[in-house]
Amino acid sequence: MRNHAGWGEIEHALGAVERESLASLLKIALGARPTYREASPLSAARMPPSRLSHLPTPLAAIAADDPLARALHSYGRSFPELVRARTGDFSDAVDCVLFPGSEAEVAEVLDFAARSGAVVVPYGGGSSVVGGIGPVPRHEYQLVLALDTARLSGVADLDVLSQTARLGAGLLGPALEDALRPHGLTLRHFPQSFEFSSLGGWIATRSGGHYAVGTTHIEDFVAAVTAVAPSGVLRTYPLPASGAGPALERLFAGSEGAFGVITEATMKLAPRPEYRASASVVFATLEAALAGLAALVRSRLNPSNCRVLDENESLRSGMTPKVRMLLAFESPNVSVDGLLAVGLALLADHGGMREDDTGGGGRNLAGERWRSSFIRAPYFADAIIGMGLVVETFETAVSYAGFGTLDREVRAAIARVLAARGARAMVSCRVTHAYSDGLAPYYTVVATPGSVSPVAFWTELKEAVTQSFVDSGGAVTHHHGVGRYHRAAFEESIGERGRAALWVLRRHFDPQGVMNPGVLLG
Amino acid sequence: MRNHAGWGEIEHALGAVERESLASLLKIALGARPTYREASPLSAARMPPSRLSHLPTPLAAIAADDPLARALHSYGRSFPELVRARTGDFSDAVDCVLFPGSEAEVAEVLDFAARSGAVVVPYGGGSSVVGGIGPVPRHEYQLVLALDTARLSGVADLDVLSQTARLGAGLLGPALEDALRPHGLTLRHFPQSFEFSSLGGWIATRSGGHYAVGTTHIEDFVAAVTAVAPSGVLRTYPLPASGAGPALERLFAGSEGAFGVITEATMKLAPRPEYRASASVVFATLEAALAGLAALVRSRLNPSNCRVLDENESLRSGMTPKVRMLLAFESPNVSVDGLLAVGLALLADHGGMREDDTGGGGRNLAGERWRSSFIRAPYFADAIIGMGLVVETFETAVSYAGFGTLDREVRAAIARVLAARGARAMVSCRVTHAYSDGLAPYYTVVATPGSVSPVAFWTELKEAVTQSFVDSGGAVTHHHGVGRYHRAAFEESIGERGRAALWVLRRHFDPQGVMNPGVLLG
Repeated sequence: MRNHAGWGEIEHALGAVERESLASLLKIALGARPTYREASPLSAARMPPSRLSHLPTPLAAIAADDPLARALHSYGRSFPELVRARTGDFSDAVDCVLFPGSEAEVAEVLDFAARSGAVVVPYGGGSSVVGGIGPVPRHEYQLVLALDTARLSGVADLDVLSQTARLGAGLLGPALEDALRPHGLTLRHFPQSFEFSSLGGWIATRSGGHYAVGTTHIEDFVAAVTAVAPSGVLRTYPLPASGAGPALERLFAGSEGAFGVITEATMKLAPRPEYRASASVVFATLEAALAGLAALVRSRLNPSNCRVLDENESLRSGMTPKVRMLLAFESPNVSVDGLLAVGLALLADHGGMREDDTGGGGRNLAGERWRSSFIRAPYFADAIIGMGLVVETFETAVSYAGFGTLDREVRAAIARVLAARGARAMVSCRVTHAYSDGLAPYYTVVATPGSVSPVAFWTELKEAVTQSFVDSGGAVTHHHGVGRYHRAAFEESIGERGRAALWVLRRHFDPQGVMNPGVLLG
Repeated sequence: MRNHAGWGEIEHALGAVERESLASLLKIALGARPTYREASPLSAARMPPSRLSHLPTPLAAIAADDPLARALHSYGRSFPELVRARTGDFSDAVDCVLFPGSEAEVAEVLDFAARSGAVVVPYGGGSSVVGGIGPVPRHEYQLVLALDTARLSGVADLDVLSQTARLGAGLLGPALEDALRPHGLTLRHFPQSFEFSSLGGWIATRSGGHYAVGTTHIEDFVAAVTAVAPSGVLRTYPLPASGAGPALERLFAGSEGAFGVITEATMKLAPRPEYRASASVVFATLEAALAGLAALVRSRLNPSNCRVLDENESLRSGMTPKVRMLLAFESPNVSVDGLLAVGLALLADHGGMREDDTGGGGRNLAGERWRSSFIRAPYFADAIIGMGLVVETFETAVSYAGFGTLDREVRAAIARVLAARGARAMVSCRVTHAYSDGLAPYYTVVATPGSVSPVAFWTELKEAVTQSFVDSGGAVTHHHGVGRYHRAAFEESIGERGRAALWVLRRHFDPQGVMNPGVLLG
């Protein structure tokens, strides 16, 4: 059962034993043993009544306004939203949730919204950590509707030879892969939110996926898209590798629900890998690991994974505290043992030593530990929030030349906030993706809030780190999206003419301003 | 010296001996020995006088209206344009050519145009084969100005570690590579027009490049772009792998000069390859070669080349008439011999046999022959046109599943035109690029015009083949662009809502309709 005040499903939240060992680790890192408090139950939620008095018949049949539905659709999974949800504060709850199952029903919802002065927040899996789905300040709008895409879950035009399929935007990761598996295909898009995020959400936020190098952002796998906007339906067609005119699909990649609702997409798939080879490689320093990473990216060996973890990141993932690269190759039809050998030799030139960590069974235990820790991390974050601590992840992308400065600036920004509030933190960094021109560092901070409230501390921290990214030439976001929290930095980053171009598109697709107010553009 | 009535430079045109052997080959293929006629000299050109009476002083200093400048900037290098140029028909000559050397000068040109009712055609290298730069029907406009980007040739912000540089949009291929070579870098973008096309032109037309798989379109190598539009300057910034909002760079990829003038771009570069391995692999049938190609693309081995030639394409390129794949791997820092071996084994599963064609010196003669023929092909086309024949290339991209039907339809369309006009043709096909979801076939047709004029025959052929692409699920273009000749098919392919979205952008960037009228949108 989905957790109205935490990540994922209630059954998978940390139990008492796991929480105890987490508390012990945090005591070592942060100096004091934190105490866990349970989240407020839904029955105690403070939620204003729905302001929706009447729905036309066809919409009434696809609507829900019970407290659980409203609670689940009002907040994403960012720190401040989770804090509000845990304390039962649903004062910005949406008025109603609608579940359209077709383009026509989506259009009806948008028409109804335009007629009744409502705003519509498209909802895929609800996993945004940047304020992509909420909270919408309820008092500013007559009516706030969530449009849940769950019923847009069709699978059509499956072309095994060309490895494409037209997929409903509401498909969450597991259902999407389940639909492809019998055909030997996979999208191979596995963000951390995989279980609780949707294809449409991935596209709307330019999600980053499985492959650690090259084409990993979801928009590179979109062959065509259909989006229902208040002003009409934009449909593009799957023409492989068209070079004709500006690519209209790209208008909706990163549109964050502000232009319309992505209802389906034809995706470029891959055969399921049959051959795999992986290893864990340790380095003396992060600098050495990143030099090895750059060499690997340039080699054209095309590894499927080459994530780099710093010492703390290794520790957090259940490994010895070393700088480590998790290297992997995969292919559906050729052995990749030779590629791994060439890759390892290249990393050895940069001081990378293959770790003997196979557990005697030919496995890559470091990789397995990391994967398991990666998937469970958001559940750990819930427990940390329940302990009154602050937890946040900060991600960006920066040039190879710029990484050193950015890393120093980020750590200095964190240190300043800690010092100002007499707080302590554990900071870890991994590099999640690498490109020809730069890499994507990902920082995790777990902190005591010091002299202020957790949300106040988070606000200062978020602002300081985001500013440090922007000041040192980093992207506002590599894959979390813009949402409401990165909006100011995003608007600044694209300049006046960039904002003007996006506003022109927004007004074209959504002349009345029905769609997801507050994201992307202010 | 640039040829006003043919490809490239006059000094590199075919000489009498080459023309004789070409004529002999064409006699075998087409049944009669064609006779070559020299092009009309520039001195005999029929060109109306410039209508430009006055230029403001700063623009007068960067203007040229001599017959050669006007002739070179009025037509691209499509068949009908070359026929007009060869016969001295410059009735649609531009009135004046301007050579701005900075963003400010570009803006001055656009301002002047807006004030004086002129239209502006951005000109990079003049190599468009789809009517991208002309002809503009002169009588429909008060004044037609060509804006030559040649002086926008700066090289700045060269970051060797991050492999990026900010490059002037007017740089032609050789000058661009010359600037990068001393730093060990390369853009590795080698369209057939390489010597006579510009970075800005590549971006404006979504040019296809060197790599035969994966990211090959130029827009995948654009980190940031600056474009001067009549309504202002849109500048994006090189943030590696940003996932924030719709990518504004993409608005100008494929914009074909209809939104504004691309003045510079920060490009993602690569280290120059040091390790290479290549082979020529022959197959019994095209189907077998394409099955091997699909397997290779899926393997993730990431070859730099895997172009497939049919029998006639091999013959045209100076090789024995066999179905052949030119397979190559390259890397700056690791040996790729192992990758070639794995790739060859995979192709052997599909019946591909490595060709013994090394000339005894460890070379790959098939690859060398093809490359040399590839670069010389446009000069051969000039000679063919001079022989009163029709020559055209048709390129598209189509799914693997759709290729068989498309290929049949294309050949049937050609056959119908030939039959209707009592003409004969040599048709060859190669596959220039391959993707996870499809491939890019490229047809070359050399034909007698039968009972009609060459241009009339070309018009019928172009229409029939383009329609066959669209009817069989092919892209309007893979890398030649839309220009004026593909406009109708492009507009049809994106539908009413797609056209509306592009018009909104066009009106935003160019409210008065100054920019390159007739391309992209009618």
